[in-house]
Amino acid sequence: MNGAEALLRTAIDAGIEVCFANPGTTEMPLVAALDTVKGMRSVLGLFEGVCTGAADGYGRMTEKPALTLLHLGPGFANGIANLHNARRARSPIVNLIGDHATWHLAADAPLTSDIASLARPVSGWVRQVASATALANDTAEAIAAAGCSPGQIATLIIPSDCQWDPAPGAAAPKAPPAPPPPSAEAVTRAAALVRAGGRLALFLGGTALRARGLRAAARIAAKTGARLVCETFPARVERGIAPVERLPYFPEQAIEMLSAFDAIVVAGARKPVAFFGYPNLPSELIPDRVKSEVLADPLEDVPAALESLAAEIGAGSDPARRSTPRPERPQGALDPASLGRALAAVLPENAIVMDEAATSGMPFFAAAAGVPHTYLALTGGAIGQGLPCSTGAAIACPGRRVIAFQADGSGMYTVQSLWTMARESLDVTIVVCANRRYRILQLELARAGVTKPGATAQGLTDLHPPVLDWVALAKGMGVPGARAETADELVRSLERSLAESGPSLIEVVL
Amino acid sequence: MNGAEALLRTAIDAGIEVCFANPGTTEMPLVAALDTVKGMRSVLGLFEGVCTGAADGYGRMTEKPALTLLHLGPGFANGIANLHNARRARSPIVNLIGDHATWHLAADAPLTSDIASLARPVSGWVRQVASATALANDTAEAIAAAGCSPGQIATLIIPSDCQWDPAPGAAAPKAPPAPPPPSAEAVTRAAALVRAGGRLALFLGGTALRARGLRAAARIAAKTGARLVCETFPARVERGIAPVERLPYFPEQAIEMLSAFDAIVVAGARKPVAFFGYPNLPSELIPDRVKSEVLADPLEDVPAALESLAAEIGAGSDPARRSTPRPERPQGALDPASLGRALAAVLPENAIVMDEAATSGMPFFAAAAGVPHTYLALTGGAIGQGLPCSTGAAIACPGRRVIAFQADGSGMYTVQSLWTMARESLDVTIVVCANRRYRILQLELARAGVTKPGATAQGLTDLHPPVLDWVALAKGMGVPGARAETADELVRSLERSLAESGPSLIEVVL
Repeated sequence: MNGAEALLRTAIDAGIEVCFANPGTTEMPLVAALDTVKGMRSVLGLFEGVCTGAADGYGRMTEKPALTLLHLGPGFANGIANLHNARRARSPIVNLIGDHATWHLAADAPLTSDIASLARPVSGWVRQVASATALANDTAEAIAAAGCSPGQIATLIIPSDCQWDPAPGAAAPKAPPAPPPPSAEAVTRAAALVRAGGRLALFLGGTALRARGLRAAARIAAKTGARLVCETFPARVERGIAPVERLPYFPEQAIEMLSAFDAIVVAGARKPVAFFGYPNLPSELIPDRVKSEVLADPLEDVPAALESLAAEIGAGSDPARRSTPRPERPQGALDPASLGRALAAVLPENAIVMDEAATSGMPFFAAAAGVPHTYLALTGGAIGQGLPCSTGAAIACPGRRVIAFQADGSGMYTVQSLWTMARESLDVTIVVCANRRYRILQLELARAGVTKPGATAQGLTDLHPPVLDWVALAKGMGVPGARAETADELVRSLERSLAESGPSLIEVVL
Repeated sequence: MNGAEALLRTAIDAGIEVCFANPGTTEMPLVAALDTVKGMRSVLGLFEGVCTGAADGYGRMTEKPALTLLHLGPGFANGIANLHNARRARSPIVNLIGDHATWHLAADAPLTSDIASLARPVSGWVRQVASATALANDTAEAIAAAGCSPGQIATLIIPSDCQWDPAPGAAAPKAPPAPPPPSAEAVTRAAALVRAGGRLALFLGGTALRARGLRAAARIAAKTGARLVCETFPARVERGIAPVERLPYFPEQAIEMLSAFDAIVVAGARKPVAFFGYPNLPSELIPDRVKSEVLADPLEDVPAALESLAAEIGAGSDPARRSTPRPERPQGALDPASLGRALAAVLPENAIVMDEAATSGMPFFAAAAGVPHTYLALTGGAIGQGLPCSTGAAIACPGRRVIAFQADGSGMYTVQSLWTMARESLDVTIVVCANRRYRILQLELARAGVTKPGATAQGLTDLHPPVLDWVALAKGMGVPGARAETADELVRSLERSLAESGPSLIEVVL
């Protein structure tokens, strides 16, 4: 057994099942070991951002880490943007990065670089492997580190000689640390705030938005009349359990929403801050006048904290759900509103929607409130997450339909994902919102007072000319596609795509 | 004038002409300033790796920096792989990275990250801007740092308030430091080695491979009978001036080539090392038995050092060039050899060839020895350089035809470049070598003893199924394309493409 085989044996024994890979020469022993050690599914991405985004989607859906297999500093760097998103989503991921043989590093060969400096900003845990003998134990520790609750990114930098040298064997799995239990003081403080009365909101993030957390939140809401507000870009929300509203993106609107409350209990999130700083607007979004208490930090056992609060205030058992009707199938012109209604009208129950539709996607969340499904958002703001994350979610949940609800500008970042979807025959319906511009940037220019952008600002925020032909791009990677220019065409295309297995793409011309 | 305008004014006054941009919200003041301050050409890339690779190509051809305009840590991270290549090519580049407003950083908003930790591994110079007042001077210093000889990467991290706050005005250009003059001792030592006789090679890299350096090297070769050997992946070689051979990629072959010499004079390069470390092979490629002297380090004035050596040994003036005939237009089956001959047969004089054709491209260099052209290689080994670097070279040299000689696997990394080529109507002929596999990895597996790869190793190194349809991918981004399945078809397609203005793509099925 060599180091690579000991690593894989350790990972498989710890329950790891999938490796999203784009290997190079320094990872060849690991590639060979994927055949000699059975039990790991390997999925090739044609760009590393596909691999890391897929591992994020997989981690969000399974709550356990996948491996990524990446090539030295530059290969890893190509995956950083989606690791940034995964870090903000607190997804569990174990990155395996091959490096030059220990004795070759001093030669400063062309691909040598400071991998640790690149890895630290996106990793909760980083280790440079010292020998083949140490590799199995390092792997077990990386998996345990990634598997903390809710999850984090663990990165192993593995010189190629540590992969090919002989190793004594696999290491036993290590248990990840349990999350801290709810703080009794925090529960008491939050209960006091709730009992003080007034207009109440629960501000929810992280694990508060999964099924158990939301059931407790719904009980608190039923008892107190509280509104449930979630982070603007939550890692994952189970829809159809409780009526959750999203905090608006722009700080003026977020502040306006939060100003309507007298008290806010925060659970599974940090207190909300503006996505960007703007002149004459604050970073913190909860107005000073509004009282707030943090019931549970994202790293604590948030569902347990919400259940403790529900018990403390004498909330009843699961409240009856007021059913929200689906919208009718829209007709006529396409715009973000009719697009959102069309998708909500036909969305299969239990689907997974990965929303990187940016400005075009905003109406969908409210329109689909009544449909039980899983909603994933762009947590870290690093665009190019949607298609990879959809890929990983589909691999995690083979029985469920995934909707990649995708802006065109962001979609181009990791467009290579379409090939992996085709290769793996994933049941993904890709809905590309082709407004042919970086619309959010045009809004930001207007907000900054540039109401009539000059030719350069216009050129840097328009995605045409030339117009991107998404049906051709999809065809180029083996994914069938169609174009929808009216709401009727969109509904028909959606129904056709949802009825078929494998991926298909719909370009929605907005 | 605000900070952004002061930055741009400073850059334009220093002679900077082009900005390769993919901006976001934190760069909006700079985007607006590109309209209010005239004189900077902005080129949009739909992915940051396009921008940084284009800046590399531009820098190699003009020997002066372009700007890149990138969005926070994740946007910058998307550009790191090609900055790694640019660092190895010693290309001059000035990166402008927008960051959150100084007072917003503490809020740890979703897009906050440690940008400096990401920037340091690929930057020779990094500065975090402290105020709008300091920004113009910081810009002048960044440009001077980038403009050192032969060039380096300077990175400015610019909080958005430093862009929008008032600034006193532009800063005067600063002169970059001159390269150190040739070392008289090194010239004496090299001359002694040359005079000692025996089989001699000059091992050339960096600026030794541009016109002035090669003319001096040719004089030395004519006097001494030395062979001229260049780095395996040179940043830029002017072809047709001197008969330069490339050092082979695999260490066994490189060692074999270098073993044929008694003495090697190194100029503009470090002593050659293996691209990767392998069991039982050394890092250093020059055998102990072979005497070697470094005439000039890459950071010194290498052409002057070669001229000094030529004078010291009494070399004559420019030797007559032995003309190497072009190959005939090939017919019949396509393979790397006939592909190389076809391209060399029709290559326009003065063309720029960006070679990221990997294993498919190896025969081209020798086949095109007789055609005066500029040759650019994948210097840092971070694949995905070819299409962006071609884009930048075409913008740098509008009168010259660029050939993007491109492997398919590598081409997918930054395929978004095609859109920028179409938007800017660049005269680029894209030759995609569609062998539909990561052929180099299959060779590496065989070298590691995996002669019959298992299903996983095969799957992780094959680019099919599904087969990539490059003509469709090109169409999706506004580039016309054709497919060639025989050498005759390839020659016809090349001649058609070379006769047309604007980009066109040829998928060469190997």
